[in-house]
Amino acid sequence: MSAKTLGMQCRECGKEYPLAPVHVCELCFGPLEVKLNWELIEKRVTRESIAAGPPSMWRYWDLLPVEGPPTVGKNVGWTPLVKAERLGRELGLNNLYVKNDAVNHPTLSFKDRVVAVALTKAREFGYDTVACASTGNLANSVAAHAAEGGFRSYIFIPADLEQGKVVGTLIYGTNVLAVSGCYDEVNRLCAEAGDRYGWGFVNINLRPFYGDGSKTYGYEIAEQLGWRAPDHVIVPCAGGSLISKIYKGLKELERLGLLDGPVNTRMYAAQATGCSPITTAIKTEAAVFRPQRPNTIARSIAIGNPADGYTAIETVRKSGGWAEDVTDEEVVEGIRLLARTEGIFTETAGGVTVSVTKKLAEQGRFGKDDVVVIAITGNGLKTQEAVMGRVGHTIPIEPNLNSLEAALKTEKLLATSS
Amino acid sequence: MSAKTLGMQCRECGKEYPLAPVHVCELCFGPLEVKLNWELIEKRVTRESIAAGPPSMWRYWDLLPVEGPPTVGKNVGWTPLVKAERLGRELGLNNLYVKNDAVNHPTLSFKDRVVAVALTKAREFGYDTVACASTGNLANSVAAHAAEGGFRSYIFIPADLEQGKVVGTLIYGTNVLAVSGCYDEVNRLCAEAGDRYGWGFVNINLRPFYGDGSKTYGYEIAEQLGWRAPDHVIVPCAGGSLISKIYKGLKELERLGLLDGPVNTRMYAAQATGCSPITTAIKTEAAVFRPQRPNTIARSIAIGNPADGYTAIETVRKSGGWAEDVTDEEVVEGIRLLARTEGIFTETAGGVTVSVTKKLAEQGRFGKDDVVVIAITGNGLKTQEAVMGRVGHTIPIEPNLNSLEAALKTEKLLATSS
Repeated sequence: MSAKTLGMQCRECGKEYPLAPVHVCELCFGPLEVKLNWELIEKRVTRESIAAGPPSMWRYWDLLPVEGPPTVGKNVGWTPLVKAERLGRELGLNNLYVKNDAVNHPTLSFKDRVVAVALTKAREFGYDTVACASTGNLANSVAAHAAEGGFRSYIFIPADLEQGKVVGTLIYGTNVLAVSGCYDEVNRLCAEAGDRYGWGFVNINLRPFYGDGSKTYGYEIAEQLGWRAPDHVIVPCAGGSLISKIYKGLKELERLGLLDGPVNTRMYAAQATGCSPITTAIKTEAAVFRPQRPNTIARSIAIGNPADGYTAIETVRKSGGWAEDVTDEEVVEGIRLLARTEGIFTETAGGVTVSVTKKLAEQGRFGKDDVVVIAITGNGLKTQEAVMGRVGHTIPIEPNLNSLEAALKTEKLLATSS
Repeated sequence: MSAKTLGMQCRECGKEYPLAPVHVCELCFGPLEVKLNWELIEKRVTRESIAAGPPSMWRYWDLLPVEGPPTVGKNVGWTPLVKAERLGRELGLNNLYVKNDAVNHPTLSFKDRVVAVALTKAREFGYDTVACASTGNLANSVAAHAAEGGFRSYIFIPADLEQGKVVGTLIYGTNVLAVSGCYDEVNRLCAEAGDRYGWGFVNINLRPFYGDGSKTYGYEIAEQLGWRAPDHVIVPCAGGSLISKIYKGLKELERLGLLDGPVNTRMYAAQATGCSPITTAIKTEAAVFRPQRPNTIARSIAIGNPADGYTAIETVRKSGGWAEDVTDEEVVEGIRLLARTEGIFTETAGGVTVSVTKKLAEQGRFGKDDVVVIAITGNGLKTQEAVMGRVGHTIPIEPNLNSLEAALKTEKLLATSS
């Protein structure tokens, strides 16, 4: 049987390389991508072949850069696409959806998708040790999947990460290196370490494989909409990979003839104002983005020098989308808005995305019947600090009816869930 | 079209009642159950009709006590049944599975199942206000689904609940009554309040409907095993409802002729030693259970006077199962064991269930090739306090290679993920 993956290719200059754990072009320093064997894939993939697959991201195995079956993360993905009726009413949108990776198996973020591919590929390459630089969600996911797969693991995080993300990494029995510095410093250290040690760094030397895991987020949206592409997708941007991979996923389904109608999807980048290199470049129509020193409560997307920033900007532009960023205050408001209208508790990155969606809706960027998808990529239990003290308070009572009666009379109660 | 639900019936004396939000028999004070229209259901349900349903618990709509389509919680359930290879090796079990409701949509516990049914039914009964007594997971779920459905809500919790469960309730914009007392006092207050106010108390007057939501946990296990019942299921016990409903679910599939082979499943009750009325009764072969004053870190299952304790005990006995309980130290060990072998981070109740499974395996209660299912019903991010300070520590380094090198040489590193 021929291989699904033919080799690597530079996204900028097109130079080809043999299949290997490499991520940067030697000629032009552009990012490398995996070159898939489309001749083979086109023969094999149909709507039916996908639907007959498992209820996980591995239903798209034919389109992922691995040769064997998944060896870790077999249950990742196929998360709900939620029709957001009540939030839609607040935003004046009749066809609003939330793609909810806040319940992704096993570590409650979209990072489980990229890690499942990266570690399955790491095993194919023969690695016994894996590592990553992370703002938290990736740390959780690499640690969990390394445990599941029996890999040794090293997780590099900024020392000031939220408690939930630290405990939710250590629990898996991994080595956590807490680096005194911001994510960009952590990432630079890891790039150097990647050259020195024989480790599979999921978001460095394994990055081309890792990135392709995000395509499944796009595939799922289209399949769950009944094999059609949405009109608009709003995506939180950190390193800038996810937004372009969702778009790539949609375009691949179009290429395979699996969709009803063309992909006219507009992609929107969402960032926190305190770390907005990508959205600033788009809004100011700058040719390049300027790295920033992050200062926001949305730490999971606080990457001042995004590895795939250029590609993210290009994706937004060529799709006809736009970008917005929001203050930390608006981040918390976004988290609360999604919770009180849809019963979904997302982390700070999700608060960014919801508030950016609101802003874009107010700017009139969506038709009221357009299909709009908000990418919710992580769970609110991981960033409780951000909302603590800003979610109201409990009403203390004694365990008797008189005490309850008194509270019901005197307390300011919420008449409805809003 | 005839109704799916014919009325209510006392589980003890058999007295019948019309369909209504009532839960206690007037004659004998036994618990009421919903009487389904089996004549209708038998005509309609096949493996194919279920498989053609949505990837949620609502694929079993025909078997649930509601008449209309789900109006809240449409995306609940159909969580992964994980083949636990590495944990299986540690326990000497070749066919060990974890049914993982720690990633249930939307609030990461099996309670989303019961609440989806209870609130869909609450709407059918015409309630605009819902309420519950909760040890945490139910609080999260009722608050989230009330928000999604636009219900007013009142959530009663013991005042000393874990922070994650309080924030993860308030975020949805609900009224949280923090009662100074243990769960059993909270529950007594709610029983009184249920009579006074016209609220739909999901685990009081709506309890018969609520309870049937748990059947889907059993249905899914069997369907995911390829339409067969497992040999053993280990279930954490709090109020005692879940264990009997899983068994009921399996028996219903057998009755409908949907399974390969009979249901010879043995059911095992798991509790923390600090609150073990159910397991103590089983282990001492007592006729009745003695209420206890809870004292355990496993607060989500710390119910000293379980509403369905008798039924739980009866289910274990008639299925040929057994029971065990574990210390708080073992609870933490159980959480860590599941995390480091399978990459799944569960809450304290899950730590109980894993450690009880280990104990039962050591007692030789399972054949090494038997199909054993551990019920993981909630997420570890909700009970971080329980493991904090007991999961190792991060290794502080500066953002340069020399500092990393020094740490790699001097720190005691984990050689593998175990």
